[in-house]
Amino acid sequence: MSGYLRAFKRATRQAVVPVVRRILGKTEDLPIALWGMRIDTDGRLRYAGQDVVSLAERHGTPLHLLDVERLDANLAAFLDPPEKGRPGVELYYSFKTQPLPWIIKRLIARGAGAEVISEYELRLALHLGTPAEKIIYNGPGKSDASIRMAVEAGILLFNLNHFEEVDRVASIARALGRRIRVGVRVVTSSGWSSQFGCSIASGEAMATFERALAVPEFDVIGLHSHRGRHIHYSYELAGFVDDVLSFADELRRRLNFEPKILDFGGSLGIPTVRGFTPVDQRLVETLHTPVAPADPASSLSPAAYVRQLMAAVHAHYGARSASVPRVAIEPGRALTGNAQVLVARVIATRTSGEGLAYAILDGGVNIAGILRHQLHQVYRVTECGSPRDTLYRLVGPICQPGDVLFPCVRLPRLSAGDVLMVMDSGAYFEPDSTSFSFQRPATVAIEGEHVHVIRRAETFEDMIDRDIF
Amino acid sequence: MSGYLRAFKRATRQAVVPVVRRILGKTEDLPIALWGMRIDTDGRLRYAGQDVVSLAERHGTPLHLLDVERLDANLAAFLDPPEKGRPGVELYYSFKTQPLPWIIKRLIARGAGAEVISEYELRLALHLGTPAEKIIYNGPGKSDASIRMAVEAGILLFNLNHFEEVDRVASIARALGRRIRVGVRVVTSSGWSSQFGCSIASGEAMATFERALAVPEFDVIGLHSHRGRHIHYSYELAGFVDDVLSFADELRRRLNFEPKILDFGGSLGIPTVRGFTPVDQRLVETLHTPVAPADPASSLSPAAYVRQLMAAVHAHYGARSASVPRVAIEPGRALTGNAQVLVARVIATRTSGEGLAYAILDGGVNIAGILRHQLHQVYRVTECGSPRDTLYRLVGPICQPGDVLFPCVRLPRLSAGDVLMVMDSGAYFEPDSTSFSFQRPATVAIEGEHVHVIRRAETFEDMIDRDIF
Repeated sequence: MSGYLRAFKRATRQAVVPVVRRILGKTEDLPIALWGMRIDTDGRLRYAGQDVVSLAERHGTPLHLLDVERLDANLAAFLDPPEKGRPGVELYYSFKTQPLPWIIKRLIARGAGAEVISEYELRLALHLGTPAEKIIYNGPGKSDASIRMAVEAGILLFNLNHFEEVDRVASIARALGRRIRVGVRVVTSSGWSSQFGCSIASGEAMATFERALAVPEFDVIGLHSHRGRHIHYSYELAGFVDDVLSFADELRRRLNFEPKILDFGGSLGIPTVRGFTPVDQRLVETLHTPVAPADPASSLSPAAYVRQLMAAVHAHYGARSASVPRVAIEPGRALTGNAQVLVARVIATRTSGEGLAYAILDGGVNIAGILRHQLHQVYRVTECGSPRDTLYRLVGPICQPGDVLFPCVRLPRLSAGDVLMVMDSGAYFEPDSTSFSFQRPATVAIEGEHVHVIRRAETFEDMIDRDIF
Repeated sequence: MSGYLRAFKRATRQAVVPVVRRILGKTEDLPIALWGMRIDTDGRLRYAGQDVVSLAERHGTPLHLLDVERLDANLAAFLDPPEKGRPGVELYYSFKTQPLPWIIKRLIARGAGAEVISEYELRLALHLGTPAEKIIYNGPGKSDASIRMAVEAGILLFNLNHFEEVDRVASIARALGRRIRVGVRVVTSSGWSSQFGCSIASGEAMATFERALAVPEFDVIGLHSHRGRHIHYSYELAGFVDDVLSFADELRRRLNFEPKILDFGGSLGIPTVRGFTPVDQRLVETLHTPVAPADPASSLSPAAYVRQLMAAVHAHYGARSASVPRVAIEPGRALTGNAQVLVARVIATRTSGEGLAYAILDGGVNIAGILRHQLHQVYRVTECGSPRDTLYRLVGPICQPGDVLFPCVRLPRLSAGDVLMVMDSGAYFEPDSTSFSFQRPATVAIEGEHVHVIRRAETFEDMIDRDIF
């Protein structure tokens, strides 16, 4: 009986898929010029001016490539010169997004501060010479040891995550005989609930400010919020900023408290990346129909985001001729995400009876787990003129059924040895990577003609370095 | 308008949740005796005879504890003395499940072989002294370099994953002037499709054997299959074994080929762990209603699994008085899973308006990602007599909305500093772990009174050891 059911399902799918594909499957790839790439006369893609195939041969695959010029440009866009006579936005880089010391050092040297969520990240910030007054400590799980370390360092701002954290942090500051600067993380109507921040709607946000203001060891200076869900469009930013500013007004009315720093957190998306919707998942996984890429043209750029944010804050305070607080942001993915690519090689190909081919790459969800949830662009780096005429499922080498990087993507016909480039690997690829059966890859920075390793690949010896046997 | 909708949803939930909880939420925990644990006179849990709180203090948290006696017993159960006059099952340990060298060495010394899926795992097997004739190489992504290494080592068996692999592996063996032993991984009616193995139903399995048998460099000896979905019940094993044996008959009829080794792969579950169903997910995530644990009494034990498997194989060949092939299995989770626990500490607690409390632990999905899909038991290790009267969402410390370990679990009221123990952490916790904002934990082995570190915790220096800056 179950055999009949399966046959019926297969027949239905065979009838439905071609129709769905004809209607929805005609997706265009994003133009490579979005990443400043070009195709050489030999049909090979150049990334950051470099031949990707040569880099893959020299450094091995899988491999991350960092376009340093783009990283610098992203930072500069966030720090765009403000309107004259006004202070600019303050940027605190979200370490967790991409914690490579070389990258962090460069961002710090060019004006960024640090946004950290753990003792390790705090130590890293201090180790790399971040001035304490440019460090913000966030997160729901601050250990006692890390709080002590931050108190002793004299960091700019502790953002209290929830009501109960007030007393915990206060008692540590008291025990150390120190006064510290704090803010409160609030959750607006668009935010995640769960473990993060104090809900405005439930009253926890107001109660937490009230309690924090009564702590003698606290200098309450900050109002902090993350939008939570990604910001891609102007109206999303507008609604979020409005919520935060309304709550700042509420704080003034109810507690006679004016934040000195408004910290709008992160959440700005990468214009060339979008999350899979449930319908997308269905299309790519079950119906083997590719879906359309992100729409970078309508997505907020870092510069536009900062302009809109600063204009909204200035308009709000200008309306009652009040002085404008410092404005902080904590970008991560929008700063590093599109400055990097993941280069992987096809180990093997196989056909399938399901109307799509398989290519097995030398990197899988062990180093690119976020591809389970996000649609990135992927290009073959050789013979770039070839028609993308084959539907592929791109999978990794680890023996798990979930090791799927691209459930359904249109590519030229692939062969073992082909080199592919997954775009926008600069956010959450590296920190989410595991050593599952395979070593973690190297990262190579490209600065014009200067190409150098900034994180070497994991070795066999590294993999057993912590073991005693 | 969306405010009204939200209020309506909240009101509905408030009406529904108590009813659902009353009907479904009365779950009993599994008895601690299943893991050989007991409660001391001071109300503290002892694991493998040791006081867990003391170990947490001495070694820090999060921390894995390995019960060596249980590991040995699991292996012994698989290798249970066979009926007299018959050869026993051959066991090849699935390295990817838990690749700690100390554990692997112990298993190898006690009679296990190695099942590897990458160059790293192959090197590890050789490095730890596994005899080449006790190594099986599986997986969809075998690199050329790793195939060469395995050919040169002279391993027992290459299981070819798909049709196209025949020629790839053959050409490498030919180039090295070596003859090698191969098998073919086939997919039965219960198996995963996708990148793994050759489907029997589609004809790929037969075609791959036919092609492999024509390769002069190949000594085709193996028929390999994983069930794919976990095996918990006797009927699941019976159906799977039947499928494999039927295909073996088909091979004899069609190709006049008799496998010398029948390799039944892994897939045996952990009796005290079960996967979340979609309904479970709804209950715990949205309706905040705990769900019932696994049912170990009705789950196949390793010894029962081996007995049933061997009996089925012998009956099959006995029926036509044919000689019985070697029988191989590749257990992972069923061997190491329940011999280990993850100890974590509550960093902070917070209330919520949603009818469940939050406890934030010092380990999250960074080191226990599999808890997103599987229901494990969790115990507080102090005051063990206390009623489990509070519904908790247990979350980790990393700033991601997905950092949820237990969406809804009934526990005694928790305070910061409390030590919890997550059972059955010996499979896929360690290989799936990341260095996301936090260092990876140590593993401590307990052998009676002898307690020793077998993998030390990651240090700050480890975290930046591969970096050049």
